[in-house]
Amino acid sequence: MSSTYGKIFKISTFGESHGRAIGVVVDGCPSGVDFDEILIQNELDRRKPGQSRITTQRKEADSFEVLSGVFEGKTTGTPIALVIFNEDQKSKDYAHIADKFRPSHADYTYSTKYGVRDYRGGGRSSARETAARVAAGALAKMVLNHYGVEIYSYVSQVGAMKLAKSYQDLDLSKIDDNAVRCPDSEMAEKMFNYIDQVRKDGDSIGGVITGVLKNVPAGWGEPVFDKLHAELGKALLSINAVKGFEYGSGFDGVELLGSQHNDAFFTDENGKVKTKTNHSGGIQGGISNGEDIYFRVAFKPVATIMIDQDSVNEAGDAVTVSGKGRHDPCVLPRAVPIVDAMSALVLVDAMLRARVNKL
Amino acid sequence: MSSTYGKIFKISTFGESHGRAIGVVVDGCPSGVDFDEILIQNELDRRKPGQSRITTQRKEADSFEVLSGVFEGKTTGTPIALVIFNEDQKSKDYAHIADKFRPSHADYTYSTKYGVRDYRGGGRSSARETAARVAAGALAKMVLNHYGVEIYSYVSQVGAMKLAKSYQDLDLSKIDDNAVRCPDSEMAEKMFNYIDQVRKDGDSIGGVITGVLKNVPAGWGEPVFDKLHAELGKALLSINAVKGFEYGSGFDGVELLGSQHNDAFFTDENGKVKTKTNHSGGIQGGISNGEDIYFRVAFKPVATIMIDQDSVNEAGDAVTVSGKGRHDPCVLPRAVPIVDAMSALVLVDAMLRARVNKL
Amino acid sequence: MSSTYGKIFKISTFGESHGRAIGVVVDGCPSGVDFDEILIQNELDRRKPGQSRITTQRKEADSFEVLSGVFEGKTTGTPIALVIFNEDQKSKDYAHIADKFRPSHADYTYSTKYGVRDYRGGGRSSARETAARVAAGALAKMVLNHYGVEIYSYVSQVGAMKLAKSYQDLDLSKIDDNAVRCPDSEMAEKMFNYIDQVRKDGDSIGGVITGVLKNVPAGWGEPVFDKLHAELGKALLSINAVKGFEYGSGFDGVELLGSQHNDAFFTDENGKVKTKTNHSGGIQGGISNGEDIYFRVAFKPVATIMIDQDSVNEAGDAVTVSGKGRHDPCVLPRAVPIVDAMSALVLVDAMLRARVNKL
Amino acid sequence: MSSTYGKIFKISTFGESHGRAIGVVVDGCPSGVDFDEILIQNELDRRKPGQSRITTQRKEADSFEVLSGVFEGKTTGTPIALVIFNEDQKSKDYAHIADKFRPSHADYTYSTKYGVRDYRGGGRSSARETAARVAAGALAKMVLNHYGVEIYSYVSQVGAMKLAKSYQDLDLSKIDDNAVRCPDSEMAEKMFNYIDQVRKDGDSIGGVITGVLKNVPAGWGEPVFDKLHAELGKALLSINAVKGFEYGSGFDGVELLGSQHNDAFFTDENGKVKTKTNHSGGIQGGISNGEDIYFRVAFKPVATIMIDQDSVNEAGDAVTVSGKGRHDPCVLPRAVPIVDAMSALVLVDAMLRARVNKL
Repeated sequence: MSSTYGKIFKISTFGESHGRAIGVVVDGCPSGVDFDEILIQNELDRRKPGQSRITTQRKEADSFEVLSGVFEGKTTGTPIALVIFNEDQKSKDYAHIADKFRPSHADYTYSTKYGVRDYRGGGRSSARETAARVAAGALAKMVLNHYGVEIYSYVSQVGAMKLAKSYQDLDLSKIDDNAVRCPDSEMAEKMFNYIDQVRKDGDSIGGVITGVLKNVPAGWGEPVFDKLHAELGKALLSINAVKGFEYGSGFDGVELLGSQHNDAFFTDENGKVKTKTNHSGGIQGGISNGEDIYFRVAFKPVATIMIDQDSVNEAGDAVTVSGKGRHDPCVLPRAVPIVDAMSALVLVDAMLRARVNKL
Repeated sequence: MSSTYGKIFKISTFGESHGRAIGVVVDGCPSGVDFDEILIQNELDRRKPGQSRITTQRKEADSFEVLSGVFEGKTTGTPIALVIFNEDQKSKDYAHIADKFRPSHADYTYSTKYGVRDYRGGGRSSARETAARVAAGALAKMVLNHYGVEIYSYVSQVGAMKLAKSYQDLDLSKIDDNAVRCPDSEMAEKMFNYIDQVRKDGDSIGGVITGVLKNVPAGWGEPVFDKLHAELGKALLSINAVKGFEYGSGFDGVELLGSQHNDAFFTDENGKVKTKTNHSGGIQGGISNGEDIYFRVAFKPVATIMIDQDSVNEAGDAVTVSGKGRHDPCVLPRAVPIVDAMSALVLVDAMLRARVNKL
Repeated sequence: MSSTYGKIFKISTFGESHGRAIGVVVDGCPSGVDFDEILIQNELDRRKPGQSRITTQRKEADSFEVLSGVFEGKTTGTPIALVIFNEDQKSKDYAHIADKFRPSHADYTYSTKYGVRDYRGGGRSSARETAARVAAGALAKMVLNHYGVEIYSYVSQVGAMKLAKSYQDLDLSKIDDNAVRCPDSEMAEKMFNYIDQVRKDGDSIGGVITGVLKNVPAGWGEPVFDKLHAELGKALLSINAVKGFEYGSGFDGVELLGSQHNDAFFTDENGKVKTKTNHSGGIQGGISNGEDIYFRVAFKPVATIMIDQDSVNEAGDAVTVSGKGRHDPCVLPRAVPIVDAMSALVLVDAMLRARVNKL
Repeated sequence: MSSTYGKIFKISTFGESHGRAIGVVVDGCPSGVDFDEILIQNELDRRKPGQSRITTQRKEADSFEVLSGVFEGKTTGTPIALVIFNEDQKSKDYAHIADKFRPSHADYTYSTKYGVRDYRGGGRSSARETAARVAAGALAKMVLNHYGVEIYSYVSQVGAMKLAKSYQDLDLSKIDDNAVRCPDSEMAEKMFNYIDQVRKDGDSIGGVITGVLKNVPAGWGEPVFDKLHAELGKALLSINAVKGFEYGSGFDGVELLGSQHNDAFFTDENGKVKTKTNHSGGIQGGISNGEDIYFRVAFKPVATIMIDQDSVNEAGDAVTVSGKGRHDPCVLPRAVPIVDAMSALVLVDAMLRARVNKL
């Protein structure tokens, strides 16, 4: 188990889906940050269940408590502990799958690795764990606000429904205008209806989230192993259900010639070095170059479905896993704040690490 | 700068393209490993320049020296230092671009981040650095051999030329049978001719490498942040020119329904728990499940081309960057052993970390 | 700030003296440990205030809550969060020193380093923080119990009163028989009376704690930097008020000749390699050799005294700091469980790290 | 094995006493440092064997090569590899103890821990390893020079011969004026003669080194675990033969009352906050307070002596270990530059870490 992320702005998350609480300790947050409780709660609210009929109906207020590290409205440089006590712990819901391995869940691998397993709602492997990430990410955002960094992510694909427009052609202020978190209202409606139909079928569907990081100054990212995009990749791949990550030109870019793909430098009217195109995705040699950073993250369909499935139990006997309880037919809308949070955590750590590059 | 990778099997690489030497220190290799110098040299030979007319003609024997950590043919548990002295240091080749930012290279970002920059062949940002990774990766392979783990990677796409067959339908023993390192000889020939044409045009082209990791036992990978696929993603994204990573069903999997995507468990004739399909790509909840691990890695076209390009210099003035010197028109064939190496490094670290999971 | 300790059994502590709570997250505890709540509470009780008239009269039950990581009485391998909510938060006690730097406290250095400072009872720099260490250390002890490792520490000196007997001549089962935690009852009584007199004088006094670690198997400790005694030294020096650490022959050993100091090896009746003497203190080359590990830790007199002292305030003006509130005249008796805890944390990490030494 | 030290200025050392080379990779040195090869060689010369008749007569020039990370006289921010090839590899000297455990050496513990062991001169456990630390420490000194930090250490005790003067009463510029490295010439002569007599007797003797760190600004050190003195303690305890560490008032301070020990603050003529006394040793709450940092380090007598000793071999049989070869009768004079180096490494890391404390 490694529930610690970050080299300087270091977070340690804890908690199980149906345990007493989930939370996070942030060790390494600079002192002097105006602590904005509302920002944290807003981000938690964007992730919490029960936002619309296309998300799980589990009831959680997801309100948090600050246990340490903040004094008279400012961070003090000491560890900040944030805790969310679980309210809706219907453990009995899970008795029927206590010794069964749910297909494409982590039941089998946790059981093999640890010998014991908290089977209630997936325990530690539940996406409920990400609430702690969102709280920590909101803290990271507070720090990044001082640098003018802006973080956006939105749903750009659900199943085969793919938004044709690039991020430059979208109004990113509209991401939260609909339940899907797609800033194109027309496409958002189609996606909503599709997800709702999948829900009624007791099934689930995947999709893609696009992330955009604006105003990141040149110089963040630590090659050769902790390149900025490598850290983003790791952080985003660590989110439940993620199967792929690409940035800049990504997988499509492999079909271009170098003469098409290279981003020519020029100096703009303010004397700033810029690139004419941005196939690089704002990162060159693993270091931000001042252009927009953009990337795409693939999410598989949620493993929990309301349809009977073949499986085995701890003893290896064939069993049927029956769908039951509450679930998200599509994780994408609620994953948007998680992608934001992980992006913020990567950036704040990169920013702090860049402070020691030069004498 | 962070040139250290791994939590337990920890490597620290060093060296610049045209400096005195490149190398690696491995701190944390277990004692008692039969040290196989030939395996290391073989892997270095697979990566070295000048293998065929579609790779750079730089002359480097890439022979290595062992400075420490091995005694009477076995690793002793102490740090193992491997060094490759640079032979072909034609620094004068680079005088013409000493103060110019080559498009889509790391010249601008290194200059901004560090203030000073070794401009000779890209200095530390050169892919020459990966020779040290390959040496360390060969050491990791020696350890993994004891577990029967097999590591394969091959070129599955060059530009728009995409191998239609999945890895199951290929003979992975044939990867090194041709200069492209595509195990399908027919496709390999087409790719070779295409790369050769791109080379003649002074241009470059990207592609995709597919990786396959066989016989990885269930239980490797450390959620929630150091999930096995997240570590693979980071390690592979840290390779020069990589723009994307996906594993299992990847980006295509987002279009499937949960009922199509889920991998049903069953018990095989030997009492082993297996899955009927493998959309999960051998990893569930960030932990290996015993099935094949497979993934795809996207490489952009090499930034160095033989065609004049617009750019700016350190002073911000508009300049022309002229192609000159030796370069790879397509990095993919030489990147195969690097993908192998990074995969091996991720796996050996995951294996060692898994030793402390249980009481 | 770095409130994280350990490479594998990694703890992150949080909390201020007069904040909402203090606590710890343990990331890396193996699964399958029988979770013994009583052991944790016992250790906390040994550290808690108000045990006798020679300790501070602050009222804290120091009862803890388990927030995660334990299921059906066993650790699951996931992070274990333990929280102690503060009860006795008399912040008003500290208004009079809000902008004053108390002599030999951390007020000035925290203020300089972080710009802001939680002045209530020293905030994060208070020894109250060590309650979280004691909770984590109790968890470490549960793991070590499986290896038969025994951890003892006791007060061997208070001011100039020094116990002449070595640890071999004491009954270590009697450490908790008196309020001083000195296993020699006669000396304990003298120490008690002396501390009580110092208390009445409004003053404070230092002392030495001796630690003894029995049944540590040969092979723990990671040279060349993380030698077992170097880790013990760091861990113990990180406890509030500690000024020195020595192990084995320590500072006195420098006066011996090599021919006197060397520990001759022999093979005992069970075929086990032993040493005739143990000036090495159970550690050779930074690795345990199977003999008893013993060490001494020096604690300065507590900085808080009931006597007026000269100082300056945040503005640099001369001020008087008046003694007020509750304090320990001698930290030693309550520091014993903290020394135990840090020793346990060092050993459990060393034990887990030793699992990856050999192929 | 853990041969990596430092969180930001991270060093990885490698090499065995009689292997091909020893060396170090520094990952995290800031760019823009004027690289001073002479400083490095000077420090290595202070540590090298054969300086006088009271040090070992092994012949090693200890000249180093720079393999990477320096360009046109400046550090580039990339890893700096420094290598010292071993010249005097008289391995045959060690054949007679190949399977014997030398008393109070690390032979037995390495053998137990790793199964295999490079017996030539102690292999990795030899103090020869510290040459790499000295090279890295010299690099750290280059960085600290920009902050005006001064590092001194000297021999203050050999056997029972103890320098009565405190560091304030000594001329620290005279440390290198004699072979003993004691700045008091009269005492130095006595120590020299004593060590020489011990040498003639084929025996060895221990001693104490006092360290003084001047001009360290307030604010360095990372509580609660990486307190500045805790890092110093660990770093110094990791040096071969060290048995104890104390700073400020140390072990003697435990006998003082709080009213005697506390350091009163005052504001000096320049408006700087100072303390009237310095029992704190320049560190309060684990953070430097701007006063001199001073400490003492205890070294045991060298384990290698020219006198026959009882021991056992790998098979457990009783054997005699006969003294042979070249050795230091007292490690102190050559340990002075090592104490300097470790102090510098601790300080440079603390300096860089302090850069991220505040927003």
